[in-house]
Amino acid sequence: MTTAIYNVSGMTCAHCVNSVREEVGQISGVSAVDVDLETGRVTVTSDVPLDDTQVREAVEEAGYELKA
Amino acid sequence: MTTAIYNVSGMTCAHCVNSVREEVGQISGVSAVDVDLETGRVTVTSDVPLDDTQVREAVEEAGYELKA
Repeated sequence: MTTAIYNVSGMTCAHCVNSVREEVGQISGVSAVDVDLETGRVTVTSDVPLDDTQVREAVEEAGYELKA
Repeated sequence: MTTAIYNVSGMTCAHCVNSVREEVGQISGVSAVDVDLETGRVTVTSDVPLDDTQVREAVEEAGYELKA
């Protein structure tokens, strides 16, 4: 089990949080996604270490940006 | 055909706009709903004059507030 933390910009409301949670949650191996709206912090728990590119793509698919 | 303008507070993103549009659009007789995110202005076109209470309830159902 691996936990990684990402910072996402652009989320303004609970709908945004849900969009990010849904997209990131669809990545293969992801078992939990916790999104904090105020800080933009997204904590992802997965069976195996994630490819950051996949996370970035999922966040962008939701309509937001991963901070460097 | 009647057009009425309402002011909605609390919308922060396109998801919010869609929520309001969907809820207000479900009111009987409504044929068009135009939502401006920046100003919060919601323009509702309907076959007959609307009951403001119905509009207020739809906006609140979506999770936002109608300004007085």
